[in-house]
Formats: sequence, structure tokens, C-alpha cells
Amino acid sequence: MDRYSALRQTARQLGVDAIALVPGPNFERLYNKSFHSHERPLVIVVPAEGPPAAVVPNLELKSFEALGFEGAVFDWRDQVGYGGAFEALAAHLPLTRLAVEGQVMRVFVHQALSAANPGLEIVDAEREISGLRLVKTPEEISILEEAIRISETALSETVAQVRAGQTEREVENLLTMALFRNGAEEHAFGPIVASGDNSAKPHAHSRIDYAIQPGDALLFDFGAKFGGLNADITRTFFVGHAPEEAAELYQAVLAANLKGHEITRAGVTAHEVDDACTTVLESSKFADLIRHKTGHGLGRAVHEAPQIMRGNHEKLDSGMVFTIEPGLYRAGSIGVRIEDDVLVTDTGCRSLTTYPKNLTVIG
Amino acid sequence: MDRYSALRQTARQLGVDAIALVPGPNFERLYNKSFHSHERPLVIVVPAEGPPAAVVPNLELKSFEALGFEGAVFDWRDQVGYGGAFEALAAHLPLTRLAVEGQVMRVFVHQALSAANPGLEIVDAEREISGLRLVKTPEEISILEEAIRISETALSETVAQVRAGQTEREVENLLTMALFRNGAEEHAFGPIVASGDNSAKPHAHSRIDYAIQPGDALLFDFGAKFGGLNADITRTFFVGHAPEEAAELYQAVLAANLKGHEITRAGVTAHEVDDACTTVLESSKFADLIRHKTGHGLGRAVHEAPQIMRGNHEKLDSGMVFTIEPGLYRAGSIGVRIEDDVLVTDTGCRSLTTYPKNLTVIG
Repeated sequence: MDRYSALRQTARQLGVDAIALVPGPNFERLYNKSFHSHERPLVIVVPAEGPPAAVVPNLELKSFEALGFEGAVFDWRDQVGYGGAFEALAAHLPLTRLAVEGQVMRVFVHQALSAANPGLEIVDAEREISGLRLVKTPEEISILEEAIRISETALSETVAQVRAGQTEREVENLLTMALFRNGAEEHAFGPIVASGDNSAKPHAHSRIDYAIQPGDALLFDFGAKFGGLNADITRTFFVGHAPEEAAELYQAVLAANLKGHEITRAGVTAHEVDDACTTVLESSKFADLIRHKTGHGLGRAVHEAPQIMRGNHEKLDSGMVFTIEPGLYRAGSIGVRIEDDVLVTDTGCRSLTTYPKNLTVIG
Repeated sequence: MDRYSALRQTARQLGVDAIALVPGPNFERLYNKSFHSHERPLVIVVPAEGPPAAVVPNLELKSFEALGFEGAVFDWRDQVGYGGAFEALAAHLPLTRLAVEGQVMRVFVHQALSAANPGLEIVDAEREISGLRLVKTPEEISILEEAIRISETALSETVAQVRAGQTEREVENLLTMALFRNGAEEHAFGPIVASGDNSAKPHAHSRIDYAIQPGDALLFDFGAKFGGLNADITRTFFVGHAPEEAAELYQAVLAANLKGHEITRAGVTAHEVDDACTTVLESSKFADLIRHKTGHGLGRAVHEAPQIMRGNHEKLDSGMVFTIEPGLYRAGSIGVRIEDDVLVTDTGCRSLTTYPKNLTVIG
């Protein structure tokens, strides 16, 4: 069995000579190995027919050999630069139309490929290439469940230590320690720990100069990376007590979250899930506080397909994993988001996150 | 004082209409703030003359306002997509020649800019744009020193706990816990903890299925990220005892490292530093075990200019920071690397890393 058969088929469907992969989630899925990339280009080109070829920094050659790579390798050394390796690749495997991962490949690699292949047309096929990761294998699901278990245990341990008067950064540090203590290999992304008015920013950074106040919402959006898979969980708590309007806002978000679980099953479209959740928010008295779509696919990348948003009429399929994360944000005072990671099944969905989501007062 | 004056001058020197910045180290230096980017383009365009303009995802607007941005902002929502925002930007600020950060900007942003500006020429000016970060401010140096202090304390605490029989992953987890306990905000990069034959891979991954053996080299390459600055330190220890040839190899690497400290001062070229260190290795009996250049600049990115390598005839200037990290690698058996972070001064260099580097047996 050729490990490239799905990629080759995608190349034929796209009408390109080949697909280029750079280190990132698609690369990791194919080879079960990651590479630091930084300023050194490493590119694998998989043609529609015939063996693949690669440009590899010389100092990665030994690690690269562990992939059991099937084709020609053109290595380059820092002192010489990579231009010659790209030219050797072009001579070996001439390209006129190449599909790339537009959200992963950086411009300097694009330009190296273009310079070595005059007239080359480069097509952004992020959607089609990453689409091969849409349906998760049972092994991937079980690794993701472990990443989520680590994350939820860390959240539970952190929440038990939160008190009014701590800074967001202090709480973030408690969370980070708990994540690594429980087996996280990395943060899936820089965690968000935000209280009070800071919780109203969907991608807030924790502050060192604000003490968490009684009555504040306290939002955690974070996840462990484990075995190449990323958890992504949001829970919003109240510290000391929940002010009345904040509690109402919380219930509206929770209702939207529950609606997402209710409607999800194979055959429903991404549009329909977002539409159902967003309609719940629009029907609340907080319709003007909506700031983003319902969710995004999750796996080897923290944000991947399917985008759970109106206008995306892709059908959901068994084995897809995505987030359901409605939120409401009143600038300057409060934000609430409740985010689960769910697995689509033939008959509905299974929530991989199991952390309680009823309104909870802590501290 | 216009915070864009250096960028504008660079744009004029490059003969471009404008410079585009995306979230990353140059962006963070200018605004002292980072953004998650993922699948949502956020771009700031700074023209040679006149106010800047930006494309910003709607859900980042509140965070973006905190930058005190001086120009027009074209926001876009997930449900609508970003094409219209790029067209509005192009109508507001027509571009024919644009400089970008080629090692940071991804292809999908490149294509969005090209689609909105027919005929646009995009120039990779990574070197010139990032060149503005070459000389560090006293404040940046002091933050970097704190990142290094955190890293060295963590290393010291970790090394005290190492025993033969542990796996590399166990040791890596000890290191990670120690980093965050001591105040790291993030890993500067995925840490390398590699022993025995794995240490011979310059960018190894820690193993869960190999117990560290007496006589193994144990290499740590890691760093804390703190306040936006990255430490990057390598030390190689021996567990239990140091085999004779391994000790000889260690001394060759140490001699090359010391030579780097000795030769560095303002006015010397990057080529000369690499050449001096590499000549030490080439004059040893291990000349065939050289695999990479001497070092790289360090700051808001882990790998940045100046590249300390033969052929790079850039002169070093006071205030630049780079790594001196010679290494020797015998495939299948052992690798040794000793890496310091140094600050160039008018009269020499100051080592920001102070962790001892004489041959040390641990465990």
C-alpha cells in the first residue's frame, strides 16, 4: 500500500503535477514525525505518479532517514544555501503546477520553488490537502481523548486553587504546571486565562497587573498537546458569586452549546450546526454580543477543517472532530464561552470533553 | 516620534510602496503584543509615506484597538471571509510593490494580497525587515537575561534529579516542570533531551523507549520564553562516567566554543566567528563530524539574524545577540554541543549564559 495514494489522488483531482508538503500537521500525519523548521526549508514533493523527492537541510538528514523516505533527497548546508538544492529538485522533477498547504508553507519556500521552476503556478490547496485529515482514525481519537483527559484533570486541579485576589497570570501558571504534571507534551496553544473585562476579548492574554475580583467571570481556553493531537477546551467560571445579568448571559451561551450537541450528526452540514447555535444566541437578549462562529475542526492542528460556520455547506461525516464553542462578549465587562470537542457519529455526536458545564461559582 | 520611521526608511531603501507585517517577532517588537493567527489573516501595511492600514479579523478588533493603531482598519467576519477586506485595503492603499517577511508570512496571505492587487510584486525582505531587530535595546537584554536565568535554574534543578535508567522523556518532563516552576511563560521551542546515539541527531526528539545508560552523553537544548524574548542553551553532560573518546570529543567542542567567545567583538564579521570556531573543529581529529554552522541570532525569534556562518560577511555590532553553539556528531553513538548566548560589545562579548561548561559527570 502506497502511503501517498490519497495525496496522489488529490493531485489528480486538482489537476496539478504534484503536492508539496512542509513540516506541519499533514507532514506529521504522514510520517508520524515532526521537524523544527525555522529558517531552513524542508520540502517534500509528491507527484501524481512516480516516487516523491525532497529538499532537506543537511543537519536534518539523519532524522529524515528515519522516515523511510522513498525518493531522491537533495540536501543543502547552511554555508552554501538552499538555492542549489531546489534547482536540483527541479531538474529531477520538473514542475509546472504545484499544490501547496497555503496556511503552513511560508513565502520564502514559495519563492524558492518559484525561482527554481520558472513559470511555476502555485495553487493554495490547503483545503484539499488538509481535507485528508478530516476523518480521524480510531487511534487518533484515542490519543485525543488522552490529551483531553490531561487537560480536564489540569483544569480541575487549577480551579481548586483559584481565589479572588490572584492575578490571571498566577492562575495561568497554576494551569500550566498542572498540564505538564499530568502528562502534556506541549501547550496546544498559548493558554487564555482571562477575568472581568479581559474575558470579553475572545483571544485575551493573561494580565499580571489585575487582581481577580469577586463577581468576575474567569475564562479558561487552553489544551494539552499529546502524541501530536491537540485538546481545545473552554470553561467560564464565576469567582465568589455570579452577578444576575452575567448568569443570564451564561445560560444563553450554555443553551447554544447544548443545541450544538443536539443537532450534530453525520449528514448535517457545518452551516446547519453554526446556524442552530447562533440562532439560539440571536434569539436571546444578547444578540448584539455575538463575535464569532460556533467552532472549528480539531486534531493535529488546533484550528483545522471543518469550519463550523454559516455558509459552509460541507456535510459532516462520521469520524470528524470539531469544537462547539459559542460565546457572548460585552466589551469592557464580561465574556462567556463554553467549548467542547465533539466526535461526529452516524447517529449523533459523542462529546470527548466531559468537564461539567453548569454555571459554577469557585474561589 | 513616528514608531514606523525605521520601517518607512527600509521601504524607501527597498524601493517598495510599503512593508506588510503579520503577527510574529517584528510585529511583537513594534506593538509589544502578540496575536494568535491560525486560519485568520491579520496584516498591517506600512507605506513609505502616510498612515498605515490593516486587515483584522473582526473577533480580534477589541484586542487590536489596544495597539493604538494609527490608520484605517478593514475587518472581516468568519461568515463572510477575508477577500472583501483585502479588496477594501487595496482600494484604500493601492500597492504595486510590497515587501514582506518571507519566513513569517504564509502563502494564503501572500495570495490574498496578490488577488486584491492585480500585478502586485511581492518581495521577500525578511532580512531587511528583521534586520531592524538586530541591535537589542537595554530593556530587551535585561528581559533576555531573565529568560536565561530561568532556564539555567531549571537546568540545574533537573540535572540534580537525573539517574541512569530514566528515559529521555522522563528527564524532559522534569525539565519542563522546572522551567514553568521558575517562571517561563512558554518553551522557546520544543526542548531536546537526547542521550546516547540520539544525541548525535542535532534536532532529536526525546524517546520513551530508551533507558539512559551509564557512559551516555546527555544533551539538553532548550530555553524559556519570557516577556517575548527567547533563551536558547545547550549543555551536554555524561551520565555515570565519560568514555575516553567521548571526553576528547567534548574538549574539542569546548575549545571551539571558547574560541567563539574569544574572537567576538563589534567590527568582526559573522563569517570570521564561524570560521574561527569551525577551524578549531577542523583541526581536531573529529573534522568529519561537523554538521552545522556556529550559531544564529537570538531574540524575539529563536533563530534570527545574524547567521554565524562562513560566507556571511555582515559585521557584528554592539548590542547584537547570538548563539555560539559548535557541535560534533558521530552518527549512531554520540553528539556533543555546547551553546551560549552572547551579547556583542565594543570591546568583546559578554556571555549572557553563565552555566558551567567544563566536562561534567552527573547521575
